[in-house]
Order: sequence, then C-alpha cells, then structure tokens
Amino acid sequence: MGNTFGNLFRITTWGESHGGGVGVVVDGCPPRLPLTEADIQPDLDRRRPGQSSITTPRKESDTVQILSGTFEGLTLGTPISMWVKNEDFRSEAYNEMSEKFRPSHADFTYQAKYGHRAWPGGGRTSARETVGRVAAGALAKKILRARWGIEVLACVTQVQHLKAIVDPETFSFDQVESNILRCPDAAATPAMIELVEQRRGEGDSVGGIVLGVARGVPTGWGDPVFDRLEADLAKGMMSLPASKGFEIGSGFEGILLTGRQHNDAFRAVEGKVITTTNRSGGIQGGISNGATLYFRVAFKPVATVMHEQDTVDIRLQNTTLRGRGRHDPCVLPRAVPMVEAMTALVLLDHALRHEAQCGRFGASSVAV
Amino acid sequence: MGNTFGNLFRITTWGESHGGGVGVVVDGCPPRLPLTEADIQPDLDRRRPGQSSITTPRKESDTVQILSGTFEGLTLGTPISMWVKNEDFRSEAYNEMSEKFRPSHADFTYQAKYGHRAWPGGGRTSARETVGRVAAGALAKKILRARWGIEVLACVTQVQHLKAIVDPETFSFDQVESNILRCPDAAATPAMIELVEQRRGEGDSVGGIVLGVARGVPTGWGDPVFDRLEADLAKGMMSLPASKGFEIGSGFEGILLTGRQHNDAFRAVEGKVITTTNRSGGIQGGISNGATLYFRVAFKPVATVMHEQDTVDIRLQNTTLRGRGRHDPCVLPRAVPMVEAMTALVLLDHALRHEAQCGRFGASSVAV
Amino acid sequence: MGNTFGNLFRITTWGESHGGGVGVVVDGCPPRLPLTEADIQPDLDRRRPGQSSITTPRKESDTVQILSGTFEGLTLGTPISMWVKNEDFRSEAYNEMSEKFRPSHADFTYQAKYGHRAWPGGGRTSARETVGRVAAGALAKKILRARWGIEVLACVTQVQHLKAIVDPETFSFDQVESNILRCPDAAATPAMIELVEQRRGEGDSVGGIVLGVARGVPTGWGDPVFDRLEADLAKGMMSLPASKGFEIGSGFEGILLTGRQHNDAFRAVEGKVITTTNRSGGIQGGISNGATLYFRVAFKPVATVMHEQDTVDIRLQNTTLRGRGRHDPCVLPRAVPMVEAMTALVLLDHALRHEAQCGRFGASSVAV
Amino acid sequence: MGNTFGNLFRITTWGESHGGGVGVVVDGCPPRLPLTEADIQPDLDRRRPGQSSITTPRKESDTVQILSGTFEGLTLGTPISMWVKNEDFRSEAYNEMSEKFRPSHADFTYQAKYGHRAWPGGGRTSARETVGRVAAGALAKKILRARWGIEVLACVTQVQHLKAIVDPETFSFDQVESNILRCPDAAATPAMIELVEQRRGEGDSVGGIVLGVARGVPTGWGDPVFDRLEADLAKGMMSLPASKGFEIGSGFEGILLTGRQHNDAFRAVEGKVITTTNRSGGIQGGISNGATLYFRVAFKPVATVMHEQDTVDIRLQNTTLRGRGRHDPCVLPRAVPMVEAMTALVLLDHALRHEAQCGRFGASSVAV
Repeated sequence: MGNTFGNLFRITTWGESHGGGVGVVVDGCPPRLPLTEADIQPDLDRRRPGQSSITTPRKESDTVQILSGTFEGLTLGTPISMWVKNEDFRSEAYNEMSEKFRPSHADFTYQAKYGHRAWPGGGRTSARETVGRVAAGALAKKILRARWGIEVLACVTQVQHLKAIVDPETFSFDQVESNILRCPDAAATPAMIELVEQRRGEGDSVGGIVLGVARGVPTGWGDPVFDRLEADLAKGMMSLPASKGFEIGSGFEGILLTGRQHNDAFRAVEGKVITTTNRSGGIQGGISNGATLYFRVAFKPVATVMHEQDTVDIRLQNTTLRGRGRHDPCVLPRAVPMVEAMTALVLLDHALRHEAQCGRFGASSVAV
Repeated sequence: MGNTFGNLFRITTWGESHGGGVGVVVDGCPPRLPLTEADIQPDLDRRRPGQSSITTPRKESDTVQILSGTFEGLTLGTPISMWVKNEDFRSEAYNEMSEKFRPSHADFTYQAKYGHRAWPGGGRTSARETVGRVAAGALAKKILRARWGIEVLACVTQVQHLKAIVDPETFSFDQVESNILRCPDAAATPAMIELVEQRRGEGDSVGGIVLGVARGVPTGWGDPVFDRLEADLAKGMMSLPASKGFEIGSGFEGILLTGRQHNDAFRAVEGKVITTTNRSGGIQGGISNGATLYFRVAFKPVATVMHEQDTVDIRLQNTTLRGRGRHDPCVLPRAVPMVEAMTALVLLDHALRHEAQCGRFGASSVAV
Repeated sequence: MGNTFGNLFRITTWGESHGGGVGVVVDGCPPRLPLTEADIQPDLDRRRPGQSSITTPRKESDTVQILSGTFEGLTLGTPISMWVKNEDFRSEAYNEMSEKFRPSHADFTYQAKYGHRAWPGGGRTSARETVGRVAAGALAKKILRARWGIEVLACVTQVQHLKAIVDPETFSFDQVESNILRCPDAAATPAMIELVEQRRGEGDSVGGIVLGVARGVPTGWGDPVFDRLEADLAKGMMSLPASKGFEIGSGFEGILLTGRQHNDAFRAVEGKVITTTNRSGGIQGGISNGATLYFRVAFKPVATVMHEQDTVDIRLQNTTLRGRGRHDPCVLPRAVPMVEAMTALVLLDHALRHEAQCGRFGASSVAV
Repeated sequence: MGNTFGNLFRITTWGESHGGGVGVVVDGCPPRLPLTEADIQPDLDRRRPGQSSITTPRKESDTVQILSGTFEGLTLGTPISMWVKNEDFRSEAYNEMSEKFRPSHADFTYQAKYGHRAWPGGGRTSARETVGRVAAGALAKKILRARWGIEVLACVTQVQHLKAIVDPETFSFDQVESNILRCPDAAATPAMIELVEQRRGEGDSVGGIVLGVARGVPTGWGDPVFDRLEADLAKGMMSLPASKGFEIGSGFEGILLTGRQHNDAFRAVEGKVITTTNRSGGIQGGISNGATLYFRVAFKPVATVMHEQDTVDIRLQNTTLRGRGRHDPCVLPRAVPMVEAMTALVLLDHALRHEAQCGRFGASSVAV
C-alpha cells in the first residue's frame, strides 16, 4: 500500500534500486495530448545520478520507454506505463548492508515492518524510486503549461547554513539550470558548491532547502477541508526521500509578525483581485487565490557518510558501519526535479477535480 | 470533495459556522469498543470557544450527540455519526462580510471557486469546522491508548517570538492543561499569555507553534513511498485552519548539521533496537522506528484584526474592512486538541493498514 | 468500512433502524444548485414504510432535514448533511431477535463479523439504511435532469412468476406511480397486487424484478477497464438489500442468440450514430453509447415470514423462530426509488469523472 | 481513470492489444510470501490465445516477467510489477478497423469518449487487457489457498442453449481442465464443444455462462452497506469484457419461490452454524456466512462475426463491415481464469479489510 498518489490524475510507482527497473503507471491522463519519450527524458536527466561532480557517480542512462497509453503520438486516455531499466548494478558494494542497518536510513524500519527487505542499493528505499514520480511529473508539467500556461519551477536556496537570495516571482529555469547546484543566485552559488565539495572531501554530507513555485495557477483550485491545496503539497513533499519540513508562503517565519502585519491586503486591478503582498503563498483557505504559489522544503543531510558509525546488525548485536558505495554528498540538485514533479502532480489533480465539481456548473465564471 | 480523511479509519466532516450544526461520520471503527458521549466531550471542551480569556467569547456548549454506530455502550463496527448543534448565532455581526472579503481569510477564494458562499461566520471556512475532527480524534486517541498504550499529546511551544522549553519525551497532559495557553513550560507561560492579551488589547493577533508528539508507537507503521507516516501527518496538520508549516524531528534546523552530526546511531538494548538520539522524530523511511514521534506546526497570526484594512468588495470595488464579531486573538490553545486529533487519526489509520498488510503474515513478529 | 459510495459525487450513509436516525453526507455536489428539502422528500415518501396496503405498516414520517451545505436555497459545494429521525420505535416486538438469528437475514453474519449487533429492528441491516441513499439519489436525479436532461426511472416488471410487459423506451413516471405496486403495465398489475396480498395472507412473501432505465445519457460516460458503467451499476444494485441478480441489456437471455443475431447494427441518422437495436442496453465497452440505458435487478422474497422456521440461537442451540413485527410482504414497490437512486448516483459520479478527464480537453466534441 | 481495482490488495492494469505489452502493478501484497513467475504463468496459459481449437489462433506466448516487489524469491511488501510483452502483431488485419466501428464492440464509444483510439487489435478494448488481472489473480489465489485454505474455481456451465449439470460444492479443477471448454460435466461437454465449432464454421459465435465458486471462505468477510461482498463480486465480474449479467446463489430463479421456500434454515452442527440449503450463495447481508460462495456470470456471444454487418465509419457514413482477423468463436473457456482472478482479488481485498477492522479487536473470535 501507499504507492499511489493522486485521485483523478493518479500515479502508481514501482521498482527497487536493483532488479528489473523502476516505473510508473499514470491513470486518468486526458486524451489527445502529444506525448513521446522526448517530453519525459529531460526531467529524468535532471534527476539522473552521475550528472555532475556533486552527485553520485552511479551510472544510469535512465532512458525511459513508454509502453502503453499513446497511439500515433497522442495520449489515448488509457493508462500510460513508463519504464526505466536498471543498469549499473554493483551489488557487492552493498554486501555489508545485508547484515547491518545503516543509521538514519530505512533499512531497520523496512526490516521491522515487512520482515524482509531488498538490501542491495537500499531496494525500494533508494531515491531511485523517484524515477517514476519525475517521469509522471514531466507529463503533468507539460499539461499544466499547455492548457493553463502554468510554470512549475524549483531551485536550491540554501545549503547547510549558506543562503541564496531568490525571488519566487522572477527566477527562471535557465538560471536554475545554469549551474550544477540548481541555484539561481549566481553570486551565492560558488560558495555553496564549494561547501558541498568540502563536505564530500570530508566523507560527510549536507542538506538544505528547495524552493518550489507555480506561476499562473488560476483562482479556485484546492478542496477544503482536508484536501486543501497546501495540505496535498505538504504530503507530496514530505513523501520525498530525506525531506524533513514544509512551509507555505510566510511559513515558520510568519509567526513573528502580528495579524495586522501579516495579512495580505486585497486590491482590484483592472477587474481582477490581487493581493499587494503574498504571505499567503498563493493559497487562502486551502484554495489558490491567483497569486504565485511558493513553498520551501527542508532536506536533511544525506545519511550515508564515509565514517565509522555506531549501529546494530540483523542479529541485534552492536557493531559499526562505514559508508561505502556511490552516494550523493547532497541531494539538493537532484531533488529539484522531484519537487517540481510532486508540485505538478498535485496541481493537475486539483485542476481536474475543480473541473469536475465546478467546471460545467459555472462557479468559476462568476464575477471575481 | 475533500471532506473525507483516512482510508481504513475514515472520517467525513460537514457543517458550517451558522446553520444546522457541525458533525462527522466515522467509518471503519473497530467493533466492541466502549463508547459514549463522555469519551468525546472533554476534547470538544478543550476546543470550545469561550473557554478562557484568550479565546473568542462566542458561546457554544458544543455538546456532542452520538446518533449511530453504538448499541448498549459498545461500538457496532457501523458508521458512527456525531453531531453538535450550532447555538450562538449572531449573524448580524457579520453583515459586512456579505459584501466584503476579509483579508487573508478564505472569503474570496470560496467565492471564486464555488460562486457562492455562506458568509455568516465564515460558513465552512470557520474553524468551527474542526469540531468533527476533534470528536473523531477523541475516539481515535481512546483506541490508540487502549489497544497499543499510545499517548498522543500536543502543546504550545512558541507565541510570536516567545519560546518555551519543552522536551517531547517528558511533558505531561496535566502540565499542558495547567494553564489557559496549553504550554507546559511553567516559567515561560506567563509572559506568553501576557503577549496574547497585549495583542488583543491592541486589536491585533498573534501566531505561534504547536508541538505534537506520540509516545509508544510500535515499530512498523507507515506506507512508503507516498503514504509515509510523516507525509500523512503533514497533510493532516496542513489541513488545519491557519497552519503554515510542518516539520518532523530535526526539521528545518536539522539542515545546519552535517550527515555525520545528524545521524541517529542505533544501539541494541535488552533485545530492542533504539536510537541514541532522535533527530528522525520517530520515523525513518516513512515508517515508525519505535522512538517518540514528534513534530511542530506553525500557525499564522489570526487574520481578523480590529483595524481598518484594505480589501475589495463583491463588486470588485476597493474598500476597507475593520474586524468585528467575536474572534480569537490567537488560535494556539484551541489548536492543541486539533493537532492531537489529526495525529491520532493518522496513526490509527496506519495501525489498521499495518494490521491488514503485515499483521497476520507475521512480518511484525520477525526478529528486530 | 464500506459505507461510502462514489468517487467525485460521494455519499456516506449512517444509521440503524432504531436509534438517533438515519442519514447521509454528500460530498462533491456542484455549487449554486437550487436545493431544499422539497426536492428530497418526494422520493423518501416513495420509499417510506406504511405507504400502502402492500408495504409494512411501520409508521415513519421520514421527514428529511438538510443540516449543511446550502445557503439561501443554493448548494455551497460543501458537504450536504441530510438527516431523518427514527420515530416509531417498537423494540419489544423484536425481543426474540436478541436471542435468535432470523433465517436468511444478516443477524448471524453481523454477529459473526463484528461480535456485536444492534438487534432491534435489525439495526444497520434494516432496509431503513436506504433512506440516506434515496435522499442523495433524489439530489443526483435532480442534477442529471437539470444539466443533461436525463430521466432516471424504475418500475416493477415481475412478481414471483407474474410478468408485466414494459418497454424501457416509453413507460412513464405517471404510469409507475399510478398504482401501489409501481408497475406501469395496467393490464398485468391487478393480478400481481393480488398475488402479493395472497402471499401476505398466507404469512408468506414474494420477490420479483425491478427494471431500471436512464434516458438521455450522453455518449462517453464510463471508465474502463474496471469502472465500466455497467460494473458500477451492478455494484450499486447488488449493494441494495435483498438483491440477488443484475443484468444489463439482453442479459442472461442474450446468450441464447448467436453473435450475428445479438449485435446492434450502427446507423448514422442526421449526423448522429445510433444503433438499430439495443441489446447492449446503452453501454458498449463500459461506456454509454447514447442509447437508453436499461437493466434488471432481481430481489429475493422477503426473509421474514409468519411461520415457524428452523434456526439457531446465540448460544448455538437449535431452535425455531416465527416472524413477528411489521414487515413488507414484498420489497418491490419500495425498491423502485432505491434503484432509481443508485442509478442516479452512479451516473452523476461518472458524469463528473468524464468532465474531469475529457471535458476541457475536447474529446467529447470530436466528430462522432 | 478506472484502471485500479481493490482497496488494500490493489491492482492497476495497463496496456493495449498492440504495443509495448500489457501488465499490472499489485500494491498491498503481504510480505514474505514465496513468489516466482512459475506461480503466475499457469493461469496466463489458461487465458492465452491459441490454446485450443475453439480459441483464437493469435499466437502469444504470454510469458510473464516479475520486474519488482520480490527479493530472493519472497515478496517484499512493495509493489509487484508484472509484464507480458506483445508478440504477434498483425496490424494489417485490422486496417479496416481504423475507418469503421465494429458493431457491438467498443470502437465507437472509445472514439466518442476520448476522441482518439488505438484501433489495431482494439487497443485497450481487447480482452488482452485481462492479462494483468489474471496475473494478479493468480497471486491472490495462491495467498487465499496458503493462508485460509480457500479454493477459488470457475467453469463453463452453459453454451448458448446447452446446459451442463454442475454442483458448486463438488466439481474439481481437474474436471474443469479435462477438456478445452472447461466444463466439468463430461456428459454434456461434447455437444457443447460441437456447438461452438459449428457456430465458428458458420462464421458466427456463441455466448454462455460461467459459474464461479469459492470454498472455505471464513464467516465475516464483506463490508456493508455498499461494499457488500456480492456487490464487489458483481462489479468485478461486470467489469470483464463481454459480461452481461451476474447472479449470486438462487439469483433470478430464486424469485419464483416464496420467502418460506427460499429461506436457508440455520442448524448448529458440532458447535458451528451452517445452513441446510444455500440459496444465499454463501453471503447474507453482504457478509460471507461460511457456506460455499457461488455465482453465475453471463457472457454474450462474441461480437466479431465473419459476416457483412451494417455499421458506420468515422466520417459518419453508413457502410458495412465483415469480421476479419483472428477471433474467438466463444469467450467462455478463456473467461474461466478471468472469473477466478476477479473472485480471488475481491476475496483477498476483503480478507485484508476484515483483518484491519475486526482482526485484532477480537470480533471474529466471539462465539458463533
């Protein structure tokens, strides 16, 4: 259980780090949309290991194959099955993992829950699991862009204590992709990359923050009281490996203000309602208000470090473990397409839900 | 859509601030459990308006009635319908709201989404909506306590800039209930209460942080990859009115550490696996690891303030609005039972899911 | 579990035969639709006990109250809670049921599943449970009629061995309501009513067939491969108390034909595709084809009979039981509004699902 | 939408008749169960085209590959992805289908719903879609057998007007597999096979009835009021291609009896409650009662016949179409494993649901 996300645009992912591959089935995709592997591959390339000097050197081409759901280049409205083969097995590097639980990994909890686990490469607990999400997210982003003109974008804004300055309203995809960290603040980036490399040199790792934004979201998406737009975004982000926190708009810092300071004033501008500030982060009462949607996700430092650490083995004996194998010193650059994917999946699902309940019934077209 | 929460222990809430009342239907409750209104009422009393000098003076006895699902004092396994009547209507206080959108409230987005809204008291957008959640949560807490010995607890740890010192492992229900703020740090509380009263005196409002904990959760609950335990907690918390952020364990501050510093070492103690620190917050890889589960939720300052603020009316004319009616200067004390409720609902749902997939099949009983 | 039906137009019912009442929460209703109790009550009156000489004399006014989800006479898009109080308790008539399992009732299986049951009046196993469905169905029928011009209708076509002749294309609501059996074949009805009365006089009961139709369903509703329109209709009908069989279009008799005889030829008539026969029953490949949708539901003879029958008591001793209390000799007339309700609920849910996936994306508007 | 079945043991199928293949993802499978392709392949072989002289000669080896969810021969509790490649493309045989709608097929409705369709081989509307169901069903059958000793079985009992005599309590798998029709009545089978061959010789086709049974189902499975066990079975069966009717126990014929005749008397035998007859079909009030579960499914005659038939083309011109390509003259022998699969999927899902709600809470262990 737990491997399906979304209600109307619904994805089911599968696959372990080592084995037959990883994949996703997308159900509920609207028909008649142009779709080929070329729409999906670029985001998989952004997620791929081995893409730069600050990601794991594991070699995976991560070439996606669409096995169903399209015909003559258009979606059919039937399930779209996408598959990426696993290539670079190197299971021997993980042999020790068959016996010992890596600290702050999921080896122990998987063993405790299921009584069995695929220890090579971490099995289902590997971030390789996110291939299916990113593939489905690329499709969702394409639909959001084509039909509603929505731009979904993410970037790195903090590495350990080093913070970039990024305006959610204006940073661009090209800025994000201009460096291997995926941080649009050109001034701050070199030091941040240097910090990652320093930590890797120390056999250590770092975490940080990814900012997610969506520009151009129409007013009216989101389903209170439980399926508030920010609640579903929070779930999507907190389901990503290594994420530890989520905040929308003013977030945790917003509590330093009083209500009077914090409120976003409404103004009417050319027949449209806007807010003069955006501490709400584009969502009010769980429903998008037409402003740019933005939020931050905290990712913890990577748990695999090249140092001896205290742990326990499967016979419940105390022991130590030193990280081996190929690992990222920092998940952030590869987390950027994951955050974009989950954002797009949440938004598209809510777009379709809104169409269903309110579309034909004219609510959206009412004044305001 | 969006008014159902949970999969196996599933609640559906209904009701507006003014009208026939608010309620909840709980489906999937195990049979043969003792249940009467006396199990539910105490948490509703903790949520109730008018309970102290720092909550809204609206008068509601919030007396719950169980309309179905029990017989001779025991649950039947059939849906449990619980209902609280609305009593203290004072709609005239809200008349201006029929014409103007309150800043940073959901008036505008509801109008934009649905084309219609129940403006008296905010209708469905009122925190009165949480009555149903708290009632269902009281039931879930009772089951968790009786069957697994789990203690679900929440408290206030920060008001605007004032922080309390609270240890997730040790603070008690009695400490929480010892003051009107629901903060267990006796030293810090007076200043925090004073700050709330000062802001109210200024016609202003404040926000802050609620800490949620669950002690005694067994190892093995949570369903990766999407229905990770922390992902469902995040969704539950971010679905609460006024919440702006969620963090589990070390959260946003955890990113200041390196991986080596951040990891929780495993040790075997009397045949049981524990972690020597708990930066994971009781969850690893989306599954509970047996340690105390803890997380923080940021609540923004209340949007209703007694000052003229810029806004727009339903004819899209610029105007101003000054808060009237009865409002909380700070949601935190009443948010405490809400956070407990959502925590318990998430945990019980995952308990039943775990029973279903892994219970009979012996996974939980495997060594570790 | 199991008390929620539908995905986008989703109902959750609750309530036992004796106790606080029976009700339903409807989530996902489109906003801005006129709705008052007067829209719901007529179908409840058609379902009500005591309505004629061939239904149970139990007295229930079954007056519905709408507790939420509307404001100033229009739906809000928020959950609609509807409630009917129980009035005519006469639990002493059921005392024997506390000790003995009625044959071919659900007393035994409820006891075996849940270990506890509300024996007065059968509790949740009573057909009184259908009040919530019929109330929600009345709303769904209204929406289908208003937005798509769809007419949902059902009638009795067989009582034990006596068959009426009814054309799914032409029988009318007025014909159905012209007699207490709800059979539109005026010639056949008197003998059928006489048969019901004869069986009741004998302390016995009868079953029969209800025909359900929907006229004016647009082409394109239904979601293969699992959520075929007829699959969801079958589930809806087989979830009704006492139903034993479902068939769509030519049904079980269709297998006597060869493929060549059975196929429905397509013809183009004024730019529209029709079939010259309708053995498909309005659905092909799980999707509506624009023809009249029709199906039949078999209802078994009522299990309560006024004769001594072998059974077992709760101490697992063999004993006998003789029916007492007030019971229908035949469920058919009261099943008619239930069949209509489930039909409307399935259709409206699929209407909204179709809007979501295919509405905005133009599929429906493509030639054909 | 609509390609997922089940709640806790949940399958999602994908794939078109021609293209990358067909497959299924199973989520929620209990961990630590032995599983290899050898557990799945036999049922796929029973479903496979070309298996006998009365099935389509299309050549497909239908060799299944398990791509995820197992490790060292045991299930992991993670999603199990199973894939069967398409091999015997012969799309040119279908060229006419690109232009014309086959009568009583789903070409027209898919085109009308989605505005696009994969016409080669019928795309998603082909019975090839059922490969995923049968693969998942084989797994479910194995679990039901291993954990509860349940035997799920189906067989053919009628071809057009020719009826076999089959006792649901006693017919065996070996009897079913003893002939190419999968009918356990050795006396009746030759004439039935002859009839199929005669119709094929005439370029025509036939339908008939498949009986499904499950022996050894424990008391207590099923979730009223909507998710009654027979309601979910009905949905499962009516979601199979070509099915037109479903009846449980006494079914449509049961209405010829009076209540007194129809009721199943309870008796206590060695501390166990049984019924002396089984007109209920093993289910009372939506919950299994411990007796053998049995039901019948009507399958219409195959729509593809080798005769000119009236139809319409995609430009909405009247035309004719004569069946070509390779087709079954009768779906029944291949429908047998499909009926078994859907039966097993429904039962296992309800087994897990029952564990979740009632397992730990002792309801099942209560007297009776």
